[in-house]
Amino acid sequence: MNKHTHSARREKLRPLLAREGLDALLVSLAANRFYLSGFELHDPQCNESAGYLLVTRNGPDWLLTDPRYLDAARRLWDEDNVFIYAQARNEKIREFLAGLRLGTIGVESQALCVQTWLDLSNGLTLKPTKGLVEELRIIKEPGEIEIIRRSCRLNHEVFGLTPRLLVPGKTEEALAWELEQAFRNGGASELSFETIVGVGPNAALPHAIPGTTAIRENELVLVDMGCRLGAYCSDQTRTFWVGDKPSERFQHTMELVRGAQQAAIDIIRPGLPAREAYLAAWNHLDRHGVASQFTHGLGHGIGLETHEPPSLGRLAETTLQPGMFVTVEPGLYDPTWGGIRWEYMVLVTENGCEIL
Amino acid sequence: MNKHTHSARREKLRPLLAREGLDALLVSLAANRFYLSGFELHDPQCNESAGYLLVTRNGPDWLLTDPRYLDAARRLWDEDNVFIYAQARNEKIREFLAGLRLGTIGVESQALCVQTWLDLSNGLTLKPTKGLVEELRIIKEPGEIEIIRRSCRLNHEVFGLTPRLLVPGKTEEALAWELEQAFRNGGASELSFETIVGVGPNAALPHAIPGTTAIRENELVLVDMGCRLGAYCSDQTRTFWVGDKPSERFQHTMELVRGAQQAAIDIIRPGLPAREAYLAAWNHLDRHGVASQFTHGLGHGIGLETHEPPSLGRLAETTLQPGMFVTVEPGLYDPTWGGIRWEYMVLVTENGCEIL
Repeated sequence: MNKHTHSARREKLRPLLAREGLDALLVSLAANRFYLSGFELHDPQCNESAGYLLVTRNGPDWLLTDPRYLDAARRLWDEDNVFIYAQARNEKIREFLAGLRLGTIGVESQALCVQTWLDLSNGLTLKPTKGLVEELRIIKEPGEIEIIRRSCRLNHEVFGLTPRLLVPGKTEEALAWELEQAFRNGGASELSFETIVGVGPNAALPHAIPGTTAIRENELVLVDMGCRLGAYCSDQTRTFWVGDKPSERFQHTMELVRGAQQAAIDIIRPGLPAREAYLAAWNHLDRHGVASQFTHGLGHGIGLETHEPPSLGRLAETTLQPGMFVTVEPGLYDPTWGGIRWEYMVLVTENGCEIL
Repeated sequence: MNKHTHSARREKLRPLLAREGLDALLVSLAANRFYLSGFELHDPQCNESAGYLLVTRNGPDWLLTDPRYLDAARRLWDEDNVFIYAQARNEKIREFLAGLRLGTIGVESQALCVQTWLDLSNGLTLKPTKGLVEELRIIKEPGEIEIIRRSCRLNHEVFGLTPRLLVPGKTEEALAWELEQAFRNGGASELSFETIVGVGPNAALPHAIPGTTAIRENELVLVDMGCRLGAYCSDQTRTFWVGDKPSERFQHTMELVRGAQQAAIDIIRPGLPAREAYLAAWNHLDRHGVASQFTHGLGHGIGLETHEPPSLGRLAETTLQPGMFVTVEPGLYDPTWGGIRWEYMVLVTENGCEIL
C-alpha cells in the first residue's frame, strides 16, 4: 500500500462525513488509522496511545501524535500536516482542533476513551460515530485480497505441519508455542489472536487458553489459529484426532459440522443477507437435532482486524457483497466430551464465493 | 495470588471509593480487573472486551462478562456474583446496574470507551475517575516483588545470551525474534512490549521498531526488552558495542549515561519526590553540557503494566515509598550518530533502594 492508496481511501471517506453531518472525523481506532494513513498499526497499547488521524470534509487531513512517533509520521505524511503534542496531550489536542474551527467533529465512540471525550468536549462540538471507516474496510481492494491470500496461505502451511506435532504427552501450551514459532518463521509479524488449543473436553470451551493439559492418544485436539502477515489477519480452525481410528462420535460430529459449513458456503453469494448464511448452517444442525450445541455465530469479517464487519449471526443485518471476506466456522460442543469446529476463510466473489 | 489476596485488595479499595464519594467502581482496565479478581489479563483486545469488575462500597462485588468467559469466571468467582451478558451488552449491563440501585458509579475514564459511557449514562449516575486502583498497585506486596524479581531475572538471563547473538549481518528484526524466543523458552508468557533493537543511528529513535538494518562491526546496538512472567512485567535496556574496541565516543557517552543513572540511584529512597531522581540525572548530564540530548523521562513504575505509576519525570508529583518499583533509564541520543540508554529496575526499600 502506498500514499496514493491511503489518500484515495480518505477521498472515499469524505462523502460519508458529509452524510453524517460531520466536518471532520478524529480517527483513533488503530486499524482505521492505519487503513487511511499507513501509520502505526503495531502499538502495544493500540488505539489512542500512538495518536490520531484527523480526516476533514474537504482536506487537508492531519496526523496527531507524540514525539516518539515523529520519525514514523515524517516517513508517511507531509510534515506541514503533522501535529506533535507532548505533555498535557488532551489540552494540546483540544487547542489544536479549536484552532482549525471545524464545526462538528466525529469521534469513534468504540475506540475513544471517556477522558479524551470529556477533555475535548470542553469547547469543541463532538459527535459519537460507529463504524464509518469500517464501511469502507468491509469491501477489500484487490491489493488487500492478495495480502489476505498470503496470510491465509501461511495458515494452511502451518496447519500442514500440525499433525506431526500432535505428539501424546505434549501440552496444549507447548503445541501453541511451536505453532507460533512456525508462523513467525514463515514471515508473520505476530499472531492475529492468541492460539486456541483444546484437548478433549477443553475443546468445548469457547475461549480455550492453551494450558498444561497434555495431548492424549485416541483423543481430539481443536486448534484455532491465525497470523498477521503484511498487516492483514488470517484465522482458521481445524479439529484433529490423535490416533489411528477416530471414534464414531468424532466422525459423526465432524460430518455434522462439515455439513453445516457446506450448507452455508453453498448459498454465500452477493445479495445474500448475512443472517441467511448463519441460518443455513443452523438449520442443517437443527435437522439433526444438535443445533443447541452450536453456541456461537457462524463467522465474522476479517482483514486488518481478526474480527471486523460483517458478522454472520442470527442478528446480522449486512447484505453480502463482492470483496467481503468472512470466516465460516460452525462448531458443536459438549463440555463432557469435547468440541469440533472447522473454519474456512471465504471471499465473496461476483458469482458466489471462494474458499481460500 | 489466591482468592484471599484479591478480596483483601478489594477491601483496601473500598475506603478509596468512600473518599471519592462513589458507591461503586466499574473496573474496566484489564490490569486493574486482574489485580482485584485474577480475571483475564491476556485478552487480545484487552480492557472492555473481556468484561468488567464491579467493586461496591460495602460488597458484594460482581464480575460482569460474556459467555466466552463463563468458565474462567466460575473458576475464580462465586457464581452468584457473576453477571453474564450476551447480545445488546451495554443495555444488559445498564439494566443490571440499575437493578442494584447503587447511586454514584465510578468509571475508569482512561479505560472505558465513549460508547459504553453514553449507553450507561442513560439512567445511571456515572462519575469519571483516574488511577484509583493504581493507588493500590503502586506499592507492591511481598508476593508481587518476588514475581517481579523472577521476571527481571529472566531479562538478565536473556541479556546474558545477547552478546553472542550480535553477529554482523544479522538484521535488527532477526535479533529481536531470537530474543523473543529466548524469553518464551525461559517461561515468559509474552513480551511485555515490542522489543526495541536499534543499530547505530536507529538507536536514537525513541520508538525504534526492529527493521531490516543489519548489525555492523564497530557499531553500537541498543536493545530495550522485557517480558511478562507470572503476569508481571520486566523492562531493561542495554547498549552494546559490536567489535573489539569501542569507539572513544561510545565509551565517553556510556560514562555520562551510567553516571547520570548512578546519580539518581544514589538518592532514591523513601520520602524522595520522584522528580528529584529525574533532576539528579539531568543535572549530571547538564554539568557535562549534554542534557539537551536526554530527551525523555528518567523512568516509570512497572508491575502488571510495563508503564504504570510512579513516573520519574520533571513534572512527577509522587513521593517515593517502600515497595515501589521504578525503572531508571537515562539516555543520550544523536540522530546522526546513535544513542546509548541503560536501564535498571529498582525497588524502593525501607532505607534506600535495591537494583534488581
